[in-house]
Amino acid sequence: MRILGIDPGLRVTGFGVIEKHGQRLDYVTSGVIRSGDGDLPARLGVIFAGVSSLVRQYAPDQSSIEKVFVNVNPQSTLLLGQARGAAICALVGGGVPVAEYTALQLKQAVVGSGRARKDQVQEMVARLLCLSGLPGTDAADALGVAICHANASAILGQLSDLAPQLVRKGMRVRRGRLIG
Amino acid sequence: MRILGIDPGLRVTGFGVIEKHGQRLDYVTSGVIRSGDGDLPARLGVIFAGVSSLVRQYAPDQSSIEKVFVNVNPQSTLLLGQARGAAICALVGGGVPVAEYTALQLKQAVVGSGRARKDQVQEMVARLLCLSGLPGTDAADALGVAICHANASAILGQLSDLAPQLVRKGMRVRRGRLIG
Repeated sequence: MRILGIDPGLRVTGFGVIEKHGQRLDYVTSGVIRSGDGDLPARLGVIFAGVSSLVRQYAPDQSSIEKVFVNVNPQSTLLLGQARGAAICALVGGGVPVAEYTALQLKQAVVGSGRARKDQVQEMVARLLCLSGLPGTDAADALGVAICHANASAILGQLSDLAPQLVRKGMRVRRGRLIG
Repeated sequence: MRILGIDPGLRVTGFGVIEKHGQRLDYVTSGVIRSGDGDLPARLGVIFAGVSSLVRQYAPDQSSIEKVFVNVNPQSTLLLGQARGAAICALVGGGVPVAEYTALQLKQAVVGSGRARKDQVQEMVARLLCLSGLPGTDAADALGVAICHANASAILGQLSDLAPQLVRKGMRVRRGRLIG
């Protein structure tokens, strides 16, 4: 299964593609889309075109995008929301299923702690994917959210086998998470 | 010149198409795109596909979209931002230039007062476009932002003729507005 991870941002959008073969994760590519100095519609257009071209080029089976945090500055929240909307449209428009994870879930999946620092994420992403160097922070977050989805979908697969028992216990699995 | 106006929203996105012939404004169509009950990516996909299909069907020369206000609830701001990003992507992706106006500019252009109520916008939009009935509030806002752009682009045209004098006076025109 090939997974495209996206770390959305209005200025810089990180991306990372990995492949999951059983328990093994292989690195395919990563990088950033820079939206340039145009006005807002132009910048959203660059993000949309960039993610669309990644979908065409790497044909991912699934995608995974970071849930953005609500900023203290509402104007920044609005701008970030629009950038995230542009990236999601390109994924949905390209027919790729989209999963969403918070930064906390990403850090827990990659480093094992929700309080992990940026450099710890970079280091663990490099280690998990056997990279020879550290990826940039935006690319590392994008690879991290792809890894998070790879793990979550594995857990989801195991949970599906348990589903009848869970249902009897009044529990449900929703988007890879167990709901009490 | 044919203008597509958009009033973005995560649940309901209003649209309105008008044609400007000299000073005259003609109504072409209006309505709403309902994003349904799916998850966030699915709803953004519906907005994107809906606006894309309007662009294909009505081939507007220009588009005009309401600048959304920053909500007291940051989570709502984020959701609205994503919906707006989806609509803008569809416009930019369809090669249509996008102009942005605040609700204040819209109300001033249509009713003549930035404090106008929703029903006053509906009534004035119906009168300006010689409609036989009142459009719904979302469609009225979308038609209103299209009218706003029709007026602003007319003023921009007049200002362009004055541009050399304005430049001498240290003034500039940017996106249809005079900057001191």
